[in-house]
Amino acid sequence: MLLAQAVEGLPPVTGGDDLAAVVAPALRELVWPDGSTGVAEGDVVVVASKVVAKAERRLVAARTREELEAAIASQTVRVVAERPRPDGSTLRIVQTPQGLVMAAAGVDSSDVPLGTALLLPEDPDESARRLRRGLDARLGVRPGVVVTDTVGRPWREGVADIAIGAAGVVVLQDHRGRRDGYGRELRMTTIAAADEIAAAAELVKGKADGRPVAVVRGLAHLVTTEDGDGARVLARSAAEDLFREGSAEAYARGRADARA
Amino acid sequence: MLLAQAVEGLPPVTGGDDLAAVVAPALRELVWPDGSTGVAEGDVVVVASKVVAKAERRLVAARTREELEAAIASQTVRVVAERPRPDGSTLRIVQTPQGLVMAAAGVDSSDVPLGTALLLPEDPDESARRLRRGLDARLGVRPGVVVTDTVGRPWREGVADIAIGAAGVVVLQDHRGRRDGYGRELRMTTIAAADEIAAAAELVKGKADGRPVAVVRGLAHLVTTEDGDGARVLARSAAEDLFREGSAEAYARGRADARA
Repeated sequence: MLLAQAVEGLPPVTGGDDLAAVVAPALRELVWPDGSTGVAEGDVVVVASKVVAKAERRLVAARTREELEAAIASQTVRVVAERPRPDGSTLRIVQTPQGLVMAAAGVDSSDVPLGTALLLPEDPDESARRLRRGLDARLGVRPGVVVTDTVGRPWREGVADIAIGAAGVVVLQDHRGRRDGYGRELRMTTIAAADEIAAAAELVKGKADGRPVAVVRGLAHLVTTEDGDGARVLARSAAEDLFREGSAEAYARGRADARA
Repeated sequence: MLLAQAVEGLPPVTGGDDLAAVVAPALRELVWPDGSTGVAEGDVVVVASKVVAKAERRLVAARTREELEAAIASQTVRVVAERPRPDGSTLRIVQTPQGLVMAAAGVDSSDVPLGTALLLPEDPDESARRLRRGLDARLGVRPGVVVTDTVGRPWREGVADIAIGAAGVVVLQDHRGRRDGYGRELRMTTIAAADEIAAAAELVKGKADGRPVAVVRGLAHLVTTEDGDGARVLARSAAEDLFREGSAEAYARGRADARA
């Protein structure tokens, strides 16, 4: 049985906050269907990157479009795709220093003071490890930790949450070598479990509800003593990505246009 | 509180089965933490497309690579990207008649009899509606229904489950018009809720465990009396997709190569 619930009653997080100190008291107040309380070994604490980034003082000035674009450029290592917007600005899907591919490099202008924007945590896996250590120190348990962000997806409408940081969680669940009912090796063999945990948590956290933290119970088989590699391994290397440069179609169109 | 559990004890599904008749008895056996049993209004029944497709007789012959490629071609309306594989075959990411963008058009060769392959359900939203009606007739409740499939994602390692069919579920949760704590309208405003439900359910269903069905409880706000538009609306139209033809990079490379 998987259970997931949002953490209620969190105070606003501001720059310099120790996130574990902010979150731990609210985690103690959780009540589960079996009457138990708090966080237990095997649970996963799922935190929106927004509060992590706020605690880590990742707010920057963005009073003008130029300042916002400079902030985005500072978080861009590679432009994956771009398209002009009706308002004259440009939508850029870029790869960030964390290896993530996101619109506007994940720079967030919502729910931050006017004239500012929020960068992603510099190293979300380290953020997750730090939160895990802090929760251990305060609560005496070492839950898994997942740091999430919300992304658009090619070919799919709507946004969904993914894992951008993780500690003590099996982010890629490897089923290689397992066989189907007919004895053949399974084809779809590596599950992005941390992304699915992020998605499950989003369903209870919700947006703009002041509930940036959730706890998922029932996945102890995906929680490890070691912090592990983190969510960095979910970001596919550019060299392996079929959509590094776009499809054969665009290439062919470029060739045809050049010859026209 | 969100709860999700796999449905145990399902018999194998074969061609021509009435899926509701197969699933309903096992759904009755579910036990929840509060002691209640079965499926209730507001629950979501999540079913892997594999068993839906098997029931709908979507197995085709695939004794040779040519037969398999013909099956894939029959499910392809547009090639989005392709790349040669080391074994001489070609990996094709294509758009299917259902509007989905998937490797090999979602044609599945695992956990099916040797020499066969399984096509996706022809109309997974209709499959979901039919299952919903069948469950209503047998159980006297109308849960939401989501039909899932497992997909790779650009730029992300690992696969994850998404919703390819839905009935009675808010597939896109619209937060437009909602405001952040500073009074500004939210940017990330339409959540692909059905995809997140699919992902949450995958965490309990697992792969190759003979557990293709799960029930998710606690999302009654996302379950509707009407069947609604279904998961078809999650498939972004080609015209709106930035990755329809691939990135500017590929285009530029094609131009440069043509001129060289």
